[in-house]
Amino acid sequence: MRLFYHPHPHDLSLASVLYALGDPVRLEIVRLLATQGEQPCAAFDFAIAKSTMSHHFRVLREAGVLRCRKEGTQHLNSLRRQDLDQRFPGLLDAVLQSATPRRDPQP
Amino acid sequence: MRLFYHPHPHDLSLASVLYALGDPVRLEIVRLLATQGEQPCAAFDFAIAKSTMSHHFRVLREAGVLRCRKEGTQHLNSLRRQDLDQRFPGLLDAVLQSATPRRDPQP
Repeated sequence: MRLFYHPHPHDLSLASVLYALGDPVRLEIVRLLATQGEQPCAAFDFAIAKSTMSHHFRVLREAGVLRCRKEGTQHLNSLRRQDLDQRFPGLLDAVLQSATPRRDPQP
Repeated sequence: MRLFYHPHPHDLSLASVLYALGDPVRLEIVRLLATQGEQPCAAFDFAIAKSTMSHHFRVLREAGVLRCRKEGTQHLNSLRRQDLDQRFPGLLDAVLQSATPRRDPQP
């Protein structure tokens, strides 16, 4: 079984976390995880190529914004809210407060 | 005289602001502007090529994080704190609270 890399809480970098959040799709992933809790990748039904979505999840995971665990054939994602709140107090709350639902372009 | 583009407060995008802040050099520029007030570009004596610094200032300006005005031969930069606080309450404070002084690599 392939193990996912997750940075230790002490190794989280503010710049990396902000960079990871600095994209509309990744912001929407974070907003949905914050409101809906742990979700499989398949729950994010954006009009975006699967490989692009995988890239976004990897950026968020490697920055320490989310945790990914495997259960059967699913990858389940959850926000690392406690780690983020401890390292960067108030940051995630401020981001979530200002994040508005994303609209995919109409086909 | 060349005028600098500055987005209107209503046009600030959370993702663009987070992206602009998601770089160690740009974070340090923002931290210094927050603690020292308006500064000329020359005040930022980082061990970084001038063209790279110009790029960082442009990313911050075009995202609406800082304002740049010309005075004589100088470009004076200041944080758009009020605009940012109005659009994204608590965000800049949370970022500044967690931002630590950057150390340039030793030569």
